[in-house]
Amino acid sequence: MNYPSLIIDSKKLKENVEVLMKICKKYGINAGGVTKVFSGDIRLSEIFVQGGVSFLADSRIENLIGLEKFNLPKIMLRLPMISEAKKVVRYADISLNSELSTIKELSREGEKQNKVHDIILMVDLGDLREGIFEETEIYEVITEIIRLKGVRLIGLGTNLTCYGGVIPRRDNLCKLAEIKEKIEKEFEVQIEILSGGNSSSLYLLETDDMPDEINQLRLGESLILGRETAFGHQITGTHNDVFELEAEIIELKSKPSIPIGEIGMDAFGRKPSFIDKGNRKRAICAIGKQDIDVEDLFPKDENIAIIGQSSDHLIIDVTDSISMYKTGDIIKFGLNYGGILKLMTSSYVSKNII
Amino acid sequence: MNYPSLIIDSKKLKENVEVLMKICKKYGINAGGVTKVFSGDIRLSEIFVQGGVSFLADSRIENLIGLEKFNLPKIMLRLPMISEAKKVVRYADISLNSELSTIKELSREGEKQNKVHDIILMVDLGDLREGIFEETEIYEVITEIIRLKGVRLIGLGTNLTCYGGVIPRRDNLCKLAEIKEKIEKEFEVQIEILSGGNSSSLYLLETDDMPDEINQLRLGESLILGRETAFGHQITGTHNDVFELEAEIIELKSKPSIPIGEIGMDAFGRKPSFIDKGNRKRAICAIGKQDIDVEDLFPKDENIAIIGQSSDHLIIDVTDSISMYKTGDIIKFGLNYGGILKLMTSSYVSKNII
Repeated sequence: MNYPSLIIDSKKLKENVEVLMKICKKYGINAGGVTKVFSGDIRLSEIFVQGGVSFLADSRIENLIGLEKFNLPKIMLRLPMISEAKKVVRYADISLNSELSTIKELSREGEKQNKVHDIILMVDLGDLREGIFEETEIYEVITEIIRLKGVRLIGLGTNLTCYGGVIPRRDNLCKLAEIKEKIEKEFEVQIEILSGGNSSSLYLLETDDMPDEINQLRLGESLILGRETAFGHQITGTHNDVFELEAEIIELKSKPSIPIGEIGMDAFGRKPSFIDKGNRKRAICAIGKQDIDVEDLFPKDENIAIIGQSSDHLIIDVTDSISMYKTGDIIKFGLNYGGILKLMTSSYVSKNII
Repeated sequence: MNYPSLIIDSKKLKENVEVLMKICKKYGINAGGVTKVFSGDIRLSEIFVQGGVSFLADSRIENLIGLEKFNLPKIMLRLPMISEAKKVVRYADISLNSELSTIKELSREGEKQNKVHDIILMVDLGDLREGIFEETEIYEVITEIIRLKGVRLIGLGTNLTCYGGVIPRRDNLCKLAEIKEKIEKEFEVQIEILSGGNSSSLYLLETDDMPDEINQLRLGESLILGRETAFGHQITGTHNDVFELEAEIIELKSKPSIPIGEIGMDAFGRKPSFIDKGNRKRAICAIGKQDIDVEDLFPKDENIAIIGQSSDHLIIDVTDSISMYKTGDIIKFGLNYGGILKLMTSSYVSKNII
């Protein structure tokens, strides 16, 4: 085995997907699997498909290109760059959009490629990341979209909790349903999809607060970690340990807890501060900020404390552990969503699906 | 051009290397180029070689494997994992070490491969990352090393400012020289190399405080950004803009500065807070935390403010800019060392050497 190693439990991942798909189906929600956290890995996307996701969605066109073989709708999650319109039309069936200039480019590409590219128009319900915020702008944009030949408006969507941390509620999602109704009346079109957000909207199903009109969700973290993300609650029957990290100890020595000498900047240009705990048994693991951020990993041995990090090193305090670690031993870590994303991005981390 | 794009000025990079090598040569320092920040990119390593570095050094064995063709000594900077000893002996001429168990494994591999692998023993002068802290342990370890047939002790080294932020000084580096002298007397060996740290030791040359015995430095940031890293001063005749980032605007709209609705957690599990500045012209660039951290990039247009980030989005405020940006426009950013490292790590960023 090459270290650091990300161990991925395929059975647990599939169970997570099955549990979530069952819940969504019960409430009439078409739920897709967001593949971006694992860089569109084809074997893990296959597990999403086996587990019953309705579509695959990713924010990076490079990842969607790798998923071409799957016979499921593919959604480009991030607003496309105008410069990538050609690839988006070729490799994504649907894209989320908020800018007319981009939609026009997608239409031009659609016509060139003899395709009609489907558009979900993003509405900003207050989280202030992407989406049209002013209602009048929505109607102006749609007036233009319905004249375009290379694209078709199939839905409205929103995204919450991502930038502003705004919690999805019946009231803000109902606003989306109202806008849909107005559009259908005014433009005499059918809006098939009302895409009500991500894993942070899931809790509304359990509290029975999801507006009936919402019929799509784009799920990432809930499939990977088994938790809804509005409040961070674990979903019954799911696993939060599908992904685990193993890193190797390259040094283990007893050292003081306060550096000796004049303190300047550390490797990240910050002036560090320290608390004197006397001599401590410190281990360095061969993994660093290039691979994961210190706040995104959690030692499985609860008596280990993380005390520092540089680009290539993770420094931990193993003094209080009952295990007698030595150089060459493997330390295991649990992970959050950001940690998994970063480890999957680093080519220095080996990925092992079991 | 694919975006986001990292633009790398090869001419400026070469000039940085030449300036630094000239300074080091003047003071009798053998200076090597640290290739880890650009993931051991072979074209950029070639520029290091053309600029006159004495050796190439990297913390990841994968990177050194890619540099096999260069006829210069290769140094493994990070303490090797025992599990990678075979590769280290095969692809690195020298490695930095602090653990006898690892050195024994390197020796076994050396014998297997009919090689003698060179060792620089790391001494912790107080920064508390890697290295032997207790002086008695140094002599115990050397007693063992000199009995091993597959390795040869060729130097002592230290690393400062990386974890603890401890500034290199004449006094702490003199300590290294003293230990060298004792070892040479006691063990009747020649310690050829005294490796006095990284770009944070450079300022000691200018102030004439570098002990004469220090004859090696391992330079990364100073070659890339032209700055010494103890105090962050730019070195005369160097460039800090070898690397620049270009990212594309995927949405530009006027929106309020405070989210609407109940605020929960953002995508990173943190509860965000906001200041009301009224409606602002906000642009979203197609680059995110997967590619770079928000604190590591700096808009070239000084009237742009960075206001947020999610995995795939960088949100900037362009209200005060005199440029009339639109969707599809390219925004340029300056970068620090950590930012360059992260962008080079992300396969979603195109690398363009000009």
